[in-house]
Amino acid sequence: MSKPLNVGVIGCGFMGRTHTNAYKKVYSFFKPPFKPVLKAICDTNADKANAFAETWGFESVETDWRKLLARKDIDIVDICTPNNTHKELAIAAAEAGKMIICEKPLAMNTAEGQEMVAAVEKAGVPNLVSFNYRRVPAVTLAKNLIDSGRLGRIFHYRSVFLQDWTISSDLPQGGDSLWRLDVKVAGSGVTGDLLAHCIDTAIWLNGPIKSVTAMTETFIKQRKHTQTGKVEEVGIDDACAFMARFANGSLAVFESTRYARGHKALYTFEINGEKASIAWDLHDLHRLSYFDHRDESIVRGWRSIHVTDGDMPYMKHWWVPGLQIGYEHSFVHQVADFLEGVDKKQPVGPTFRDALETQKVCDAILASAKTGQWVEVG
Amino acid sequence: MSKPLNVGVIGCGFMGRTHTNAYKKVYSFFKPPFKPVLKAICDTNADKANAFAETWGFESVETDWRKLLARKDIDIVDICTPNNTHKELAIAAAEAGKMIICEKPLAMNTAEGQEMVAAVEKAGVPNLVSFNYRRVPAVTLAKNLIDSGRLGRIFHYRSVFLQDWTISSDLPQGGDSLWRLDVKVAGSGVTGDLLAHCIDTAIWLNGPIKSVTAMTETFIKQRKHTQTGKVEEVGIDDACAFMARFANGSLAVFESTRYARGHKALYTFEINGEKASIAWDLHDLHRLSYFDHRDESIVRGWRSIHVTDGDMPYMKHWWVPGLQIGYEHSFVHQVADFLEGVDKKQPVGPTFRDALETQKVCDAILASAKTGQWVEVG
Amino acid sequence: MSKPLNVGVIGCGFMGRTHTNAYKKVYSFFKPPFKPVLKAICDTNADKANAFAETWGFESVETDWRKLLARKDIDIVDICTPNNTHKELAIAAAEAGKMIICEKPLAMNTAEGQEMVAAVEKAGVPNLVSFNYRRVPAVTLAKNLIDSGRLGRIFHYRSVFLQDWTISSDLPQGGDSLWRLDVKVAGSGVTGDLLAHCIDTAIWLNGPIKSVTAMTETFIKQRKHTQTGKVEEVGIDDACAFMARFANGSLAVFESTRYARGHKALYTFEINGEKASIAWDLHDLHRLSYFDHRDESIVRGWRSIHVTDGDMPYMKHWWVPGLQIGYEHSFVHQVADFLEGVDKKQPVGPTFRDALETQKVCDAILASAKTGQWVEVG
Amino acid sequence: MSKPLNVGVIGCGFMGRTHTNAYKKVYSFFKPPFKPVLKAICDTNADKANAFAETWGFESVETDWRKLLARKDIDIVDICTPNNTHKELAIAAAEAGKMIICEKPLAMNTAEGQEMVAAVEKAGVPNLVSFNYRRVPAVTLAKNLIDSGRLGRIFHYRSVFLQDWTISSDLPQGGDSLWRLDVKVAGSGVTGDLLAHCIDTAIWLNGPIKSVTAMTETFIKQRKHTQTGKVEEVGIDDACAFMARFANGSLAVFESTRYARGHKALYTFEINGEKASIAWDLHDLHRLSYFDHRDESIVRGWRSIHVTDGDMPYMKHWWVPGLQIGYEHSFVHQVADFLEGVDKKQPVGPTFRDALETQKVCDAILASAKTGQWVEVG
Repeated sequence: MSKPLNVGVIGCGFMGRTHTNAYKKVYSFFKPPFKPVLKAICDTNADKANAFAETWGFESVETDWRKLLARKDIDIVDICTPNNTHKELAIAAAEAGKMIICEKPLAMNTAEGQEMVAAVEKAGVPNLVSFNYRRVPAVTLAKNLIDSGRLGRIFHYRSVFLQDWTISSDLPQGGDSLWRLDVKVAGSGVTGDLLAHCIDTAIWLNGPIKSVTAMTETFIKQRKHTQTGKVEEVGIDDACAFMARFANGSLAVFESTRYARGHKALYTFEINGEKASIAWDLHDLHRLSYFDHRDESIVRGWRSIHVTDGDMPYMKHWWVPGLQIGYEHSFVHQVADFLEGVDKKQPVGPTFRDALETQKVCDAILASAKTGQWVEVG
Repeated sequence: MSKPLNVGVIGCGFMGRTHTNAYKKVYSFFKPPFKPVLKAICDTNADKANAFAETWGFESVETDWRKLLARKDIDIVDICTPNNTHKELAIAAAEAGKMIICEKPLAMNTAEGQEMVAAVEKAGVPNLVSFNYRRVPAVTLAKNLIDSGRLGRIFHYRSVFLQDWTISSDLPQGGDSLWRLDVKVAGSGVTGDLLAHCIDTAIWLNGPIKSVTAMTETFIKQRKHTQTGKVEEVGIDDACAFMARFANGSLAVFESTRYARGHKALYTFEINGEKASIAWDLHDLHRLSYFDHRDESIVRGWRSIHVTDGDMPYMKHWWVPGLQIGYEHSFVHQVADFLEGVDKKQPVGPTFRDALETQKVCDAILASAKTGQWVEVG
Repeated sequence: MSKPLNVGVIGCGFMGRTHTNAYKKVYSFFKPPFKPVLKAICDTNADKANAFAETWGFESVETDWRKLLARKDIDIVDICTPNNTHKELAIAAAEAGKMIICEKPLAMNTAEGQEMVAAVEKAGVPNLVSFNYRRVPAVTLAKNLIDSGRLGRIFHYRSVFLQDWTISSDLPQGGDSLWRLDVKVAGSGVTGDLLAHCIDTAIWLNGPIKSVTAMTETFIKQRKHTQTGKVEEVGIDDACAFMARFANGSLAVFESTRYARGHKALYTFEINGEKASIAWDLHDLHRLSYFDHRDESIVRGWRSIHVTDGDMPYMKHWWVPGLQIGYEHSFVHQVADFLEGVDKKQPVGPTFRDALETQKVCDAILASAKTGQWVEVG
Repeated sequence: MSKPLNVGVIGCGFMGRTHTNAYKKVYSFFKPPFKPVLKAICDTNADKANAFAETWGFESVETDWRKLLARKDIDIVDICTPNNTHKELAIAAAEAGKMIICEKPLAMNTAEGQEMVAAVEKAGVPNLVSFNYRRVPAVTLAKNLIDSGRLGRIFHYRSVFLQDWTISSDLPQGGDSLWRLDVKVAGSGVTGDLLAHCIDTAIWLNGPIKSVTAMTETFIKQRKHTQTGKVEEVGIDDACAFMARFANGSLAVFESTRYARGHKALYTFEINGEKASIAWDLHDLHRLSYFDHRDESIVRGWRSIHVTDGDMPYMKHWWVPGLQIGYEHSFVHQVADFLEGVDKKQPVGPTFRDALETQKVCDAILASAKTGQWVEVG
């Protein structure tokens, strides 16, 4: 029998929903060693918090996160608030001895991130940053294929995260779901929001990034701010591209934007090795493309692997071959792995320390975009 | 506030899981007028039933469906048992005044189906057969596009459901997940299991089927039977194809098999109208292909619609544009619609009566396959 | 040094162009044992024939095919005229001792075809029917893969040829490029024009077809006839679908229409074997899809083979890997193979006798469509 | 009647074939104002030249290009020799008053290119550099769509040219088809060979490139040289990526390599505008992807335009809808347009002057790759 583990979620926005859904589903499908209990939801807006509790079945509501952290009946704190709050919340949670799952990016910058890593490591609490795409089964499969050595020496890595939802100049910045356009809350634009995903996956699959050169652009320079009601300068990067060199000698190109008409969440990566190549695309997340030069030449070609069979990562817990899962399931896998790690007293990546590496790359990107120079990471 | 509605699920196999998951998720995402309560799970195998109850959080367990039906605290009975039990269970549930959701196909044959329809209509209970694919958002979108008249006069309909999981002659028939190979339990092979889905969607999208000519094949004539331990004749159709004429004058070709190497659950349909065409594929269920001849000629082409935006059927209840849902969500939509219909006292399709039309086509197919003649439906 | 071989082409419509282009290109790319010389073009319309000769560089013009056949300096006669002329021309050419390449379909019906076969075999002249798609490199590759036994026992074959160019009721029948709508000239509609291609490929890849059941439809019953100026009954089949059983025990579904909005020339086939499957699509003719169940399960998927490498059929004669050829090249390959066969005194398929098998299937289809019965082929 | 125009081709390697084939086909399909006559082939290797003349039907052979240029019966000189010869040949041809078609890239560097531009402009001879991909119909269609203003403000451009043919370290450098690996002959690696194509298309579609930052890599540092027989340093760039800013304010990312396992000639571009986006891929060169935000939202998606209809650029000269052309046809279009320009006394792009802009970007890339700095173009 699984032991209950009490969860307190902070923030009931989009990410509050994805994380809560994961806690709610994980037991029936994965039978992890702990059974999450939706103990408390916390949001400064009491109405939102109460509605969220009713919708999802949380047992209680808090509007002050300090009270939540002070509760003895909370085992895991799950931080789903905007980026500028992560540091304060995470450090306090660590000091309160809570296990922590924190939304990405880890922090506003590397300096903040380092404090957070120090705090969780000092407290010795299990910690994880929610770079959920690692646990899309096709992405995990890519990791397994790479780790098995099938690709041989790696020459190239390329990755994009393209969206188109901020093209209209009428879109305001700030508030609710638009805090991602407010640099004071988000820290950066696509770099921390989207490229951070690309970078986390890239480091996981291909090792450390040594140096970068970047360019950023803010296409729409001023937008009305929802909270002040005034037209203000836009401080975030609407688009960012960077080139990189990995420690393993491979070259990389990364690009992200919210101005690529026709792409909603086109997160892709491709990795080219001496013997084989792999490509993936979030818009069809249940497939993995694979090319193996060792195939007999007359039947050699890119394979589209429909990642739904029971021997694929995580898939035996779901349905039958041919029946796909979706976006939300990556969060269920994340919780399942985290609970397994708690039980085995083993860290589960990406830990805060892992996510700090991504933060360092983000900082290097933003620094390079200002100077036009190559910047060493770290 | 939604009123609680008590659910009793019969059968804890694959379909028991998909239906239970739907009851468990629907409230948080759809806020339907009723909130399903997992009141009882019923299975003749007590161990399985108890384990299932623990996994999913059912409040109680029954091993005799008569006892379940006799309980006053059960509002909906959900029948997830093999085909040869549908008739008895459904008629008894109707007589007990329960709302009924029944797995497809409706029955072993038309005669059984007619008794079932009579029973639910006499009892006046809300009833639905779980042809879940109608409620994949891309399929519902297809329905909306067709009903809006965009396609003009319809010329052609084609649909396949291709699998490859029974190619090995070592696979036994009968028992557990293999009852679909036992004609005494399943009634037929791919016709009732897979083509029934194709036919339900086809009638829904394109109206009544008037006549059919069919061919069937059983590639592997004998298989060991799990329950008897003996090698026995295989009574099901391994493959079935049929041609049809619809009442609206359009022509159709349907095919299903479990011997199409490389296809796990490749359910597709395509409909060609005078002005536009539509195609869909279960292996990428979040996309709909659409061609509109009215597009300017130099930019005319098949469009791949990524059905994830908030204005797509059901999608505003889930995530954000670009983030796909999967197979399981079609069942959540089905329950959401059913509960809405219960509240509004309106039938929600496919009702037993709707499903009877599909059953009639299946019977006509099997009859035609024996004689080689065209058979009128109904 | 290749010996010159004098070609006389009859008919300067669309097919006259494709065949002439092939004769003109074949030497530079394939260095066949004979070098075709464009000796004479023949068309009853002198203006068209003269213009065609100037455009393509024919040395002479004839307006009476009897004169062409009487010429001693003509080695090959290439028949590119409408279907209702094939018999007379081919028999006369055979009697004149000419080698013959004849456009498909072989004849208006089996009876005509038998006379033609008898004539060429009696005359002992090299003969070939231009089912050009056999020699698209990806299709030839499919043949090679099947013949090597990779697929194992074959279970299923399916093929369509879908077009949409006759949907408008304003389109007249008869004359020039529209003779394909005139039953007196074409013999049949999509059956002889499009399904004949599907059947030729199917027999080549999968062996003889034993029996069929078919349905046909003429969606637009009357069209103005270009030559009479009057609205007349349409005698051709606008659409035709049929189911078939092959001699090897596999099942097949075929469909063709000119009313599938969005498809210009969507000729596809797929063949499912016990161990592997193959699929091809004329709209991307330089690719072959291949699935091999023997691949390791975690990297198993449909492969898209870009058929452009030098070890692919015919491709070493063209460009470099990655650079595709197109439709016209299938005719060049056909001529190259034919000339090779002439040199080696070996028949090159599809001979008239091979094409007669396709004709028999077409006749069986049309017969079945009238009676609704299964019809044995031959 | 078209007037004859005498062509002298220099170089009978791969490009000699593609250009010669174009001269040979253009008249029958395009009826241009001039009819090219294959007057002379020139190659220093007499055996190769004689064989080439026999294969293609050239009337005469030269082994000294000076003699070719001295001939009065040569109107067009077509330069198909390696990059390090372009300057000398082109300037001499201009001085001899010949029309010139020169293979890309224009020159070894900008300085050479400027001399060449000066020479042709002083001589007043029609001149063109063979960036053939502009005239793939789908690419020309992209140009037309962009020029019509459909995309609105442009935000992003991205393009890659990925190959995998030099991954083996056993591949020597230098000689015959391998001169592209010899920096003394090629000038650069992928930059001049592949990125030059990407850049020419990009400038044509999206206007001038203002500044770039680049990185290059030589993965295999030493290779045996075919001509010296010794292992020598490899001087070319095996891979090159660069970021750029266009004069119109849009951002770009470009990448090319010969180490992307699985890609033979994957040349792609994508352009994202405020209202619409376009994407193209050489591996399926007969298709263009198009997304238009103005489409009604429920049927909005990327369209795959099968560029084969008669109203598509160049296509009315070929076959019928649905039947694709291939790589070689881009060269036929190039010659057709060039001859049309000669007749109308209008320059046809890319002229030497146009190609000089591409050369300047290449030089800026190579300079940036050395310093790691952003470099202004020009």
